[in-house]
Amino acid sequence: MTYDTNNIFAKILRGEIPCVKVYEDEDTLAFMDVMPQAPGHLLVIPKTGSRNLLDADPQVLAKTITVVQRLAVAARAAFDADGVYVAQFNEPAAGQTVFHLHFHIVPRKEGEQTKPHSGAMADGELLKAHAEKIKAALA
Amino acid sequence: MTYDTNNIFAKILRGEIPCVKVYEDEDTLAFMDVMPQAPGHLLVIPKTGSRNLLDADPQVLAKTITVVQRLAVAARAAFDADGVYVAQFNEPAAGQTVFHLHFHIVPRKEGEQTKPHSGAMADGELLKAHAEKIKAALA
Repeated sequence: MTYDTNNIFAKILRGEIPCVKVYEDEDTLAFMDVMPQAPGHLLVIPKTGSRNLLDADPQVLAKTITVVQRLAVAARAAFDADGVYVAQFNEPAAGQTVFHLHFHIVPRKEGEQTKPHSGAMADGELLKAHAEKIKAALA
Repeated sequence: MTYDTNNIFAKILRGEIPCVKVYEDEDTLAFMDVMPQAPGHLLVIPKTGSRNLLDADPQVLAKTITVVQRLAVAARAAFDADGVYVAQFNEPAAGQTVFHLHFHIVPRKEGEQTKPHSGAMADGELLKAHAEKIKAALA
């Protein structure tokens, strides 16, 4: 397993391609998934590059999961969700499509099905509005 | 959200009901999921009770995820898997069925479908054999 510094999330971290940012600190970035499985679907990534969880620095992982928690709580509140699905895929056989460690946070509502992973692109303005809702819930 | 001290995993932690143990330290327990979605499916839980990730102590969560990592690496090796799916469900709307924080670790192979979450009970002897494989890979 190797880490490719030209993966999409590395480019986002370098500011080479845009993202709809929700949260940032010294070690972590969170932004909206452009192919949301449900409204409010966001991603949390460490700034330190690793291909996925399997090769991550344990200290980076520990820091990242506490940010995942804060954002899961905020996303739940922002979308008045009944639950929150947290997932992390390692390698294509497990559904990984971008090879920089990331956690999915997907607010869930009773009786509403999620869309497929890496399905359809969402409207950019809608994602910005959703990011603002989560940021407001974080504050 | 409340934590019910009579949930199944709390009973496992108190030794009131058995589990097929894979790993244990002062803060964490890992054991085979009795309804595996794929061979090697295991669960990692903190010994400190919380309903799920949303109400967990961040320090407990940080400790737990580093054990998840170690076991994901070991499970991958033990089952010669192509990938590893890591998931954590919060509340029934997100698939949570036992209300004590737990992370699922599911080794994945290319082209093999997983079984449904909380599907069929696996044979106890098979689970013990799988636990031994993961323990050997951890060592």
